[in-house]
Amino acid sequence: MQIEYPNFKFDITQKSDTSRARVGVLSTPHGALETPAFIFCATKAAIKGASPAQMKAQGTQIILSNTYHLMLNPGGALIEKMGGLHQFMGWDGPLLTDSGGFQVFSMGHGSVSQEIKKNSRDTRPKTVLKISEEGVTFRSYLDGSLQVLTPERSIEVQRQLGPDFVVVFDECTPYHVDKSYTEKSLHLSHRWGVRCLQEFEKHHTGRQALYGILQGGVYPDLRKIAAEFVNEQPFFGYAVGGSLGENKAQMYDVVAETMSLLNPTRPVHLLGIGGVKDIFAGVLQGIDTFDCVHPTRLARHGGALIKGGDKEKNREHIVLSNQKFQYDERPLDETCACETCKTYSRAYLHYLIRASESLVMQALTLHNVAFMNRLMAAIRQAIRDDRLEAEREAWV
Amino acid sequence: MQIEYPNFKFDITQKSDTSRARVGVLSTPHGALETPAFIFCATKAAIKGASPAQMKAQGTQIILSNTYHLMLNPGGALIEKMGGLHQFMGWDGPLLTDSGGFQVFSMGHGSVSQEIKKNSRDTRPKTVLKISEEGVTFRSYLDGSLQVLTPERSIEVQRQLGPDFVVVFDECTPYHVDKSYTEKSLHLSHRWGVRCLQEFEKHHTGRQALYGILQGGVYPDLRKIAAEFVNEQPFFGYAVGGSLGENKAQMYDVVAETMSLLNPTRPVHLLGIGGVKDIFAGVLQGIDTFDCVHPTRLARHGGALIKGGDKEKNREHIVLSNQKFQYDERPLDETCACETCKTYSRAYLHYLIRASESLVMQALTLHNVAFMNRLMAAIRQAIRDDRLEAEREAWV
Repeated sequence: MQIEYPNFKFDITQKSDTSRARVGVLSTPHGALETPAFIFCATKAAIKGASPAQMKAQGTQIILSNTYHLMLNPGGALIEKMGGLHQFMGWDGPLLTDSGGFQVFSMGHGSVSQEIKKNSRDTRPKTVLKISEEGVTFRSYLDGSLQVLTPERSIEVQRQLGPDFVVVFDECTPYHVDKSYTEKSLHLSHRWGVRCLQEFEKHHTGRQALYGILQGGVYPDLRKIAAEFVNEQPFFGYAVGGSLGENKAQMYDVVAETMSLLNPTRPVHLLGIGGVKDIFAGVLQGIDTFDCVHPTRLARHGGALIKGGDKEKNREHIVLSNQKFQYDERPLDETCACETCKTYSRAYLHYLIRASESLVMQALTLHNVAFMNRLMAAIRQAIRDDRLEAEREAWV
Repeated sequence: MQIEYPNFKFDITQKSDTSRARVGVLSTPHGALETPAFIFCATKAAIKGASPAQMKAQGTQIILSNTYHLMLNPGGALIEKMGGLHQFMGWDGPLLTDSGGFQVFSMGHGSVSQEIKKNSRDTRPKTVLKISEEGVTFRSYLDGSLQVLTPERSIEVQRQLGPDFVVVFDECTPYHVDKSYTEKSLHLSHRWGVRCLQEFEKHHTGRQALYGILQGGVYPDLRKIAAEFVNEQPFFGYAVGGSLGENKAQMYDVVAETMSLLNPTRPVHLLGIGGVKDIFAGVLQGIDTFDCVHPTRLARHGGALIKGGDKEKNREHIVLSNQKFQYDERPLDETCACETCKTYSRAYLHYLIRASESLVMQALTLHNVAFMNRLMAAIRQAIRDDRLEAEREAWV
């Protein structure tokens, strides 16, 4: 099969001599973005706490939405009728949707999302009823209605939504499954991948580009099979997904292993990773884009990302509800030029949290968005200047 | 007593020939505002759902905060230490604080706020323990601690907060009290008013201007006594407060009665009134500024103010959760140029409410703020052009 992407382009403008790190320009029908880039999660077609204009003002290049949530409410057909997701949510820049697979399986098994990240506190009921060659049957978390998600339906909904980047539908295996299940699942995902390509090609107008997903769990031989599959297929780019191991060392190994096997001319996205340290590790392995709810979710829980982190607590953010900020007249981050840092003191943000004032959500969201965009810009510049390790020291 | 306000000025630039309506410029140490103007409520030192930059961008001239809430949390001393309320909340324009009286009594009697508006559903416990010549003893709604609010303390806290406009501490009588209580209370409020003036004068640096409050309930003879009192005292401006009656007709009568008695060179604020129809009625009687939580609270409950109102339902706003907006591609108001109307359809805002997405609060807040500022600008222009009645027809 051959698929052309005439309105998309990935130009690698600079490569590191000492690692796989690279700077590029990813062109879409809704404008270009510089990579490495961070993709913010507008899960249900809205960034919680920030308007499209505010996202743009903080330097955001690209956002994503979730097919799973949007197919259940308000539905692909309504969004298509409203002119597509870009117009519906008022975002005119590059946009990605995932396939719905991660949410079906993570919400469906009740604990996959947590398990993938090695943390089993989630006790929600299992809503996945059947996984077959055809697809997945599950119950809507909204109204209990029976839903079937197949590769064809995922691509169809993503066509209705109309983002620039579309992702294939796959089975996302949790951490606890064994190698035998992972291998069977991998081959199922590959057959689904081919069906996604066929469905995608059928209606292809050149306005969307398809990403393949790499599964294979923590097993090098399976990751190799996955890499060979996606290299052979006419995907525009790759998304590295699935379980990346039980700790950071293993995650870095799995990513390194996978990246060594991929066609280096295509853009690579690392799914669901958004920590500062992890982004540097991914960039060093050649990852071009990242996404994670972390920066915006952290904001809603009163956390602000700080360059260099909170050394006392050994973490990448400070928690504004902490009593020590009550009289702190400094901005969140003296090196940050975002609206929040130009306007408010830590003392004010601390007060807003204590007073349950909703404005703090917006303020911290804007800061964390600006932080991530500034981080990625600094990373790009550091790759150009061949001093990524020094830049890492300043941020981690 | 004589008090000068060298850094404040109220210039009436245009008077209507056919009513008491007037256009003016109110100058403060933090800039000037054009009147008639609407004052938005940043109750606890924050507009819920909009940053100072967003408020400015929607044309906001002035906001207010509540002494009662801020004295309890985070306290006047902390805000003073942080450079005052302007700096603390990041608002550099004109700013007013009320005296705390309305909240002490409305929250304290459990139902006064509702009663003043003739609506007795509030069943909160009474926290006012004692009203004496000295002041009011009440329990903090936050931690149950015993608090005493006196005229002196109210002015002291307002000095710590540092707004441009300060309001005297008074007893705010509910609707149900009889004339005899209203009369006794009026005289108590006047004695408190004199103590406020004395306390204010003691530390007066010219950076703040004091408003007197007019009480007197629905009784013309008591309103007359109140008017004579404030006219004689060196207040910079007046605030019309207390019970304005059991229906709109009575409210308009009370306001008209009061306005006919006041020194016409001083600015007059009408406390807690924010409906479109009521604002036109107030402007016709010579009111210069209004405040109310209505526009921003309505936004948080999914309501959008619309020029001309919702004729079908006979109200001044539409309710976005209504099913009829599910496929409505129009902006909230086709005549509005706010960020929300430029960016989103009613269908999207309807969807956000149904999906419990917090962005809708911000979107509707910005629209309602823009609406009120546009309304007041239209009113000012209509007074200049002597066509206020025609303008009223377009909005009500």
